[in-house]
Amino acid sequence: MTAHPLHLPSGTVDLDAIPTDATPGFSGKKSDGKAQLFALGPELADLQERLFAEGRATGSHRRVLLVLQGMDTSGKGGTLKHTVGLVDPQGVRISSFKAPTKEELAHDFLWRIRKALPQAGYVGVFDRSHYEDVLIARVNELAAPEEIERRYDAINEFERELVEDGTVVLKCMLHISKDTQRERLLARLDNPEKYWKYEPGDLDSRARWDDYRAAYAVALERTHTEHAPWHVVPSDRKWFRNLAVGQLLLAALRGMDLGWPPADFDVDAERARLLAEDASA
Amino acid sequence: MTAHPLHLPSGTVDLDAIPTDATPGFSGKKSDGKAQLFALGPELADLQERLFAEGRATGSHRRVLLVLQGMDTSGKGGTLKHTVGLVDPQGVRISSFKAPTKEELAHDFLWRIRKALPQAGYVGVFDRSHYEDVLIARVNELAAPEEIERRYDAINEFERELVEDGTVVLKCMLHISKDTQRERLLARLDNPEKYWKYEPGDLDSRARWDDYRAAYAVALERTHTEHAPWHVVPSDRKWFRNLAVGQLLLAALRGMDLGWPPADFDVDAERARLLAEDASA
Repeated sequence: MTAHPLHLPSGTVDLDAIPTDATPGFSGKKSDGKAQLFALGPELADLQERLFAEGRATGSHRRVLLVLQGMDTSGKGGTLKHTVGLVDPQGVRISSFKAPTKEELAHDFLWRIRKALPQAGYVGVFDRSHYEDVLIARVNELAAPEEIERRYDAINEFERELVEDGTVVLKCMLHISKDTQRERLLARLDNPEKYWKYEPGDLDSRARWDDYRAAYAVALERTHTEHAPWHVVPSDRKWFRNLAVGQLLLAALRGMDLGWPPADFDVDAERARLLAEDASA
Repeated sequence: MTAHPLHLPSGTVDLDAIPTDATPGFSGKKSDGKAQLFALGPELADLQERLFAEGRATGSHRRVLLVLQGMDTSGKGGTLKHTVGLVDPQGVRISSFKAPTKEELAHDFLWRIRKALPQAGYVGVFDRSHYEDVLIARVNELAAPEEIERRYDAINEFERELVEDGTVVLKCMLHISKDTQRERLLARLDNPEKYWKYEPGDLDSRARWDDYRAAYAVALERTHTEHAPWHVVPSDRKWFRNLAVGQLLLAALRGMDLGWPPADFDVDAERARLLAEDASA
C-alpha cells in the first residue's frame, strides 16, 4: 500500500497543502469513477469472503480495520454505504462512535474501542474512532494537554498490537474544504429528507474549523506509522472519495494474499458418509 | 403482513404438507425472480433509511428484527447477503448464534439474545436465534423437557415485549427438503472454495432430520403468535427464497408507515447562522 498516491508523506503535515478537490491517481470523470468503483465489487466481495472463510475455518486472527475520520459532512457514512456496501454484510462490523457515555468516560479512552474491534475474519469499520480522543478532546479541552500527549503514543502502541495480532489497519481521513462543508450543511437544511442529518451543534464545530485542522495535522503526524499509515482522501467529490476508499480497501485485502482454507476433514470420507447414509435411508 | 402467502396458517403444523420447492405467490421463472428482487432494492433502501433516521433523530424505539431459522444449507447466509445486502450496511446489525459459551450457559437462554437486539432505527438480523434453544436443545436433550416447555412461553412473552416496545418481529423458517440438503452438502465437498462451509457435525444433525422436523413443527406451532407470526419460506430454489424474504422485509417496512423526521431545530435560523458566519469570515 505504500505506493498509493493517497499515502500521507512522512514529516510535518500541512493539510492546507493537500487539495480537497483533486483526484490523484485518477484521470477520468465522475461517470468513469462510478463505473470503476462498481467494477471493484466482485473482487472486493471475493477477497472479503476468503477473509471471512479464514476466520471461520482456521485459527487465524487476521481481519481488517478501516478507520474513517473527517469533519462533519465529509462523507463517512456515504463512503461506507458505497464501498463497504459492495461486500457481504455478514462479514462486516460497523461501529459508530458518538460522545462517550458516563461509563465509557470512567475507563481509559481505548476501552470502548477495544470492545468494538472486529472478530477474526471480519472487515471492521470505525465511523469516527479513538482519534476523536485527540481531536475533539484537544479542540474542546476535554482532557489535559499531558493526557492528549499520552494518547498519541497509546494509539500507536494499540495499533501496533493490532497489527502484530494480524489486523490490517487502514486509516483514511476524508479531507474536505470549508466551502464544501457549507454547501453540504445548506443542502441538509434545504431538503426535509435530510433534516435528520443536521445538528445545530455542527455549527459549533464548524466555528472551530481552524482548530480542528490543527488538531488533525498533529494527530496525523504523530500517528502516521509504518504499521498503520494514514491516507488523506480528497473528498470534495463524493465519487472520487468512494472510489479511493474502495481502491484502498481492495489493496489492503490483496496484500493479505488470501486463499481458501483447506479442508480440516477427509473430503472423500465425508462424501462417502453422505452417500452411504442416503443409500441406507 | 397477514395476507402474505407464506404466512403460516394457525393450528397444527405439518411441515411435510408444505412444499419446499414451490413458489407461492409468484408465477415467473428464475430470471424474473432475480430481477424482481433487484427491483425491490431502491424502496427497501429508502424505507430502511427512514427507519434509521427516525432512530437517530427522534425518541422512537422502532426497529425491525428479522429472525432466520432453517436446517444447515437452507441458506440463511445467502438470504442475508442477497436481501439485507440491498440496504445501507450502516443501519443493519447481524448476529450469528453459535453453540452458547460457558458464560452464556450460566445465564437464562434469552440473556445473549437480549444483548444482541438491534438498537432503535436498525434492522437487526438473527442468523439462528433463541429458537435454537427449543430446536437443537430439544433434539439433543440439552435441557430438561420442562425447561423446553417453559421456553416456548418465555419466547412468546419476550417477543411480545419487543413488539410492545416498537419492534417488528419478522420470523422466517427457510424450508428445504432432505434431498436439497444432500445436494448442497455434496456441492460443498466438491468445491474447495466451499470446504470452509462444511462441518462433519452437519451430518450428525442430518441424521436426526426427522427429529428436527418434529422439533420445528412444535416450535412453530407454539410460537406462532398474532404479534410475531411465522413465515415458512420454500427454499429449495434459492432465488425464490431470496425474493420471498425480500418481499416480507419490504412488507414489514411498508407496514411501519415511515416518514422523515421533522426538524427539531429552526431551519431558517440555522440557515441564517450558517450564511452569516461565512459572511463575517
